Order: sequence, then C-alpha cells, then structure tokens
Amino acid sequence: MKLYTYFRSSAAYRVRIALNLKNIPHELAAVNLLKSEQQATPYTDKNPQGLLPALETTQGVLAQSLAILEWLEETHPDTPLLPSNSWEKAQVRSFCYAIASDIHPIDNLRVLKYLSGELAATDEQKNTWYRHWIIEGFSSLEATLGEHAYCFGDKPSLADICLVPQVFNALRFKVDMSLYPKISAIYARCNSLQAFIDAAPENQPDAQ
Amino acid sequence: MKLYTYFRSSAAYRVRIALNLKNIPHELAAVNLLKSEQQATPYTDKNPQGLLPALETTQGVLAQSLAILEWLEETHPDTPLLPSNSWEKAQVRSFCYAIASDIHPIDNLRVLKYLSGELAATDEQKNTWYRHWIIEGFSSLEATLGEHAYCFGDKPSLADICLVPQVFNALRFKVDMSLYPKISAIYARCNSLQAFIDAAPENQPDAQ
Repeated sequence: MKLYTYFRSSAAYRVRIALNLKNIPHELAAVNLLKSEQQATPYTDKNPQGLLPALETTQGVLAQSLAILEWLEETHPDTPLLPSNSWEKAQVRSFCYAIASDIHPIDNLRVLKYLSGELAATDEQKNTWYRHWIIEGFSSLEATLGEHAYCFGDKPSLADICLVPQVFNALRFKVDMSLYPKISAIYARCNSLQAFIDAAPENQPDAQ
Repeated sequence: MKLYTYFRSSAAYRVRIALNLKNIPHELAAVNLLKSEQQATPYTDKNPQGLLPALETTQGVLAQSLAILEWLEETHPDTPLLPSNSWEKAQVRSFCYAIASDIHPIDNLRVLKYLSGELAATDEQKNTWYRHWIIEGFSSLEATLGEHAYCFGDKPSLADICLVPQVFNALRFKVDMSLYPKISAIYARCNSLQAFIDAAPENQPDAQ
C-alpha cells in the first residue's frame, strides 16, 4: 500500500496512525499542499477529488480518510479500532464525525485560503475563525467523554485517531487546551504510544 | 424511534430517506434551526453536540447523520444501503464523505451566520461561498460516477442518500446543475421514489 500524505494534513495523519496501530506495511508518498500539488496531475489522476489523503492498494485508489479507516478496519481486523457492539460502534463514529465533518473541513487549508483571498480576511480573523470551530466542537466533545484512558475505553479507537490530529492543530493555533482536561489527557496518553509518535507531523520524511 | 429534525436540514433529510427506504417506524420531532432551538435545552439535553439530527432509540440518543445511517444499516440490514463487498463499500463511503465532510459542513447555516456576522460578508459573498464548495465537490463527484441508474448500481445506497439533499441545496442556491448531468439524472430518479418524496423538505410537517 502507498499512502499519499502531507506531514501537516490532519486527515493523512489519521490514516498514518491507523496503519501504524495495525502494523500494516506501507510506503508514504508526499504531496505538498502548500504547493497545491493535490490539485494537479499526477495526483489528481490517482484521486480526482484533489484532496489528501488517498491510499493506493492492489484494488485501486481510495480517497477520504474515514473511508480508508473503515476499509482498513474491515480488511485488517487485528488490533480493532471499532467496538464490535453496534451501539458502541455508533457512539465512536459519532465522535469521529463530530471532528471529521464538523470541525476539520471548516478549518481546512483551502477554506482558510478562500477566507484570506476572496473574503480578504485578516490573519487575526482567520485565526479566530480557526479557533472558533475547534472550541465549539471540543466543548461538546469534552462533555461527552467518560473517565477512560482513551476516548472510548482502555484502548485507542478511531475516535482517538480523529482526536489527536485535531488537538495538534488546536495547539498550533494556540487554542487554550486547559479548558479541555479530558481531551488533553487522552492526547498525552496517545502520544506516548509509538504508533502515534511515528505518525506525528514532525516525524514525517516530508516535514519542513 | 424518534428523529429530531428540521425540514431544511440536509443532514436530517439524509436520515429521513434512510428510515423510509428501510420502512422503519418512527416519529419526527421538529427542532427549529432558524430559532437556534438546536443550541438550547431541551434539545441539548438529548444531543450535547447541539446539531441536527439526532435519533432517539431504546438504547439512547445518537448524534451525527452518518453515524445514524451506519447504525441503521447494521441493525436493520433489510434493504441494504451499502454493498457487502469491502472495496465497493469503501467507494460508497468515500462518495458520502466527499459530501458530508467536504461540502455540507462548510455551507452549514452556522458557518453562513459566522460569515455574515463576524466577517460581515454580504449576501452576494455568502451565496458565492455556498456555490463555490458545491461546485468544487460536484465537479469531482460527477467525474467519478459511472453509467448506473443510481450512484453505485441499480439501487439507492448511502451515496444517493447523501447526494439528494446536497442537490436540493444546490438548486436552492441556484447552482447551474446542467454542468452535472449524471448527478442531475440520479437526483431525478431518486425523487421518483416514494421514500425520497416523503423525506423531501417541502413534505415535512414543519415545512414553512
């Protein structure tokens, strides 16, 4: 398998964590978002959506990080990242989508570019926007978390895989994480695991 | 089951279609987005995320439309809405997320409110924004569609369930749908089915 990735893409970061947790052999192919390489050939020949990440497999190319995570879970069930119980699984997915749909896409680089371009937003307005959607999302997620070591129990799940890259972004944009002690504790715990460490942006071959 | 819904919420619209396609008995409880009822009690007692939809079941309340759709699919496998083959399933999910993560949340009412409030965007700027993210998304999705009656084959799937509400929004905001003949044909075909007709915004008890 080959993962098309960019060191600071949080959607790619999610897949890197899952590949590591499941010990799936893979190679990384860097696509530079700052140079808009994801919107040009040869990458768009692989993924017409023009977004990162994409996973190249023997069956073809799969786009969208959550679709990749679900597919990895189905085809590589060792080290499960979803509970087997349907209702518990639904709660984990709900947590994931609250990040992957309702925080991250609104703060995506292409949206920030639109804000500063077409809408002439200042850097300060852009940073406030960025923090606003994280704060909205984290406030409600913090309230739903129990007293477990990870988001849902004593092992990392897809919820933690979605949470950690979003916290990384929050710290980068100076969100006050002391407001979210449970999220912060889970973040620290995940980042003590080798699979998360190896997937971190600063440890990628294309890190700048 | 009780679905918390608003007639024009596209995420709620998705779940309404699925409940109808699967013939699952349910009641609807209207939550008025224009009055921000989703951000206040009693609704936030049910769904702390403060977003629509949420599904109340005998096991508890489930938030996030995609999590609800996946849970309905697992617990009510009649009239399947996902292929059984893992790779095909992954393609359907990828299509869904391209809408549910990369179009819809950026055009959500709360984002539009932020644009006109904090960023003082004009109505024209807001409408251009709205259309921009649909056009970006639909252009690549149109290119991935084959020559099937529905998005993936001869029966509706979760892909069609995500697509139809997004086309409804596109038409409302006057996106030139003639650019997307395959999407338009699928939209028309879905809207000839009773399950889609009954789920349409204009046919909801809370329609204004």
